Amino acid sequence: MNPKTRVTQKTRAVVLLSGGIDSATALYIARRKGYQCDCLTFVYGQRHFREVQCARALARKAGCSIKVLTIALPWKGSSLIDRKIPVPRNTLSGALAQKMIPSTYVPARNTIFLSFALSYAEAIDARAVFIGAHAQDYSGYPDCRIEFFRAFEKVACTGTKAGAGQKRIRIETPLLHLNKSRIISMGRRAGVPFELTWSCYRGGTYPCGSCESCYYRAKGFREAGVKDPLKRGR
Amino acid sequence: MNPKTRVTQKTRAVVLLSGGIDSATALYIARRKGYQCDCLTFVYGQRHFREVQCARALARKAGCSIKVLTIALPWKGSSLIDRKIPVPRNTLSGALAQKMIPSTYVPARNTIFLSFALSYAEAIDARAVFIGAHAQDYSGYPDCRIEFFRAFEKVACTGTKAGAGQKRIRIETPLLHLNKSRIISMGRRAGVPFELTWSCYRGGTYPCGSCESCYYRAKGFREAGVKDPLKRGR
Repeated sequence: MNPKTRVTQKTRAVVLLSGGIDSATALYIARRKGYQCDCLTFVYGQRHFREVQCARALARKAGCSIKVLTIALPWKGSSLIDRKIPVPRNTLSGALAQKMIPSTYVPARNTIFLSFALSYAEAIDARAVFIGAHAQDYSGYPDCRIEFFRAFEKVACTGTKAGAGQKRIRIETPLLHLNKSRIISMGRRAGVPFELTWSCYRGGTYPCGSCESCYYRAKGFREAGVKDPLKRGR
Repeated sequence: MNPKTRVTQKTRAVVLLSGGIDSATALYIARRKGYQCDCLTFVYGQRHFREVQCARALARKAGCSIKVLTIALPWKGSSLIDRKIPVPRNTLSGALAQKMIPSTYVPARNTIFLSFALSYAEAIDARAVFIGAHAQDYSGYPDCRIEFFRAFEKVACTGTKAGAGQKRIRIETPLLHLNKSRIISMGRRAGVPFELTWSCYRGGTYPCGSCESCYYRAKGFREAGVKDPLKRGR
């Protein structure tokens, strides 16, 4: 965290909490840094609605408020929100492995999420917005790149009343340079209740175990030497 | 317009159409430049819902599609969406005249609108997003400043699949350096049906004639030497 932001007990932060491992870890990091956290999650027509329930449970467990915003996009173009496009199975020749943008990419999703978080942060006089984007996503999603977050921070500086002064709203990406296993290790140290997190892109009762997201979750836990408390699909 | 973008009959643009004079003029400018326009408007809890009806009528008249998105913000902090805060009457000592941010400022509103427009543009393979922000707003709203739009264009470059190449999505602000009377003159030349536009911040049947927005509309028409075809309140 930038030393210029003095965090007191009453310094507020908005945390984008999707219900996955990364955003849950970002929430626990923000709390550790001393922020009073207000979470924000979205219903945007995703197949994996289960993650919204997980976000609620995570916020409750962490003693934070949570707002759930519905923003159904009337355009498609992503297998996460368009049921006509199949969610890809993970294979080593998958889109991520080939450094291609996966079909699960939702156009400008992080820009939309960050915009709402910025608006919320300004309305409640928060000093930071936390987002759990990380290096592994970097290879696939354009809105997970460091240049993108830098550009968005400039938007936060120039496009809000809070502006660039003492009241500036920072875009905090504490996981940006970490891979999944390091995030899991960090999350475990910070006390993240992994049993309340959800990763699977499909909307079943149990994780499918075969989509890109399940693959990276399993790999991450394995490499971190931590047991995933979430039951697998059968 | 930047000469790098070659506009053909099939080049698409997303136009943020609020139903006011500025966005209507931006729409007619985009059409003149040869873009096939898809409009986007928002229901965000504003008092002046009438502008949404005007946006629909304007799009219909211009032969363009329009999508209406509902994004009720669960936080307040602006007299445009919070009915407990009065809409200020215009006086020469008003917020705009004092270079203060008016109470009608909605936190990060343009950031949210542009984010959706960017997502829509990427989904339909459009090359530009048009927004009718202008110099007069510049003095009051932080998200109408040139630095803000520059920063957002960087977000559009870095945060989308379209990226920075030939498929780059430009943020077009054709009115940024104009005042209301010049916009009205330009709009008249472009054939904007001003009788279908709405400016008043209050939600009545007729414009109130006393809010900041009515004041600048009347001043703009007067200075442009054009008769406002919209009936005033009585």
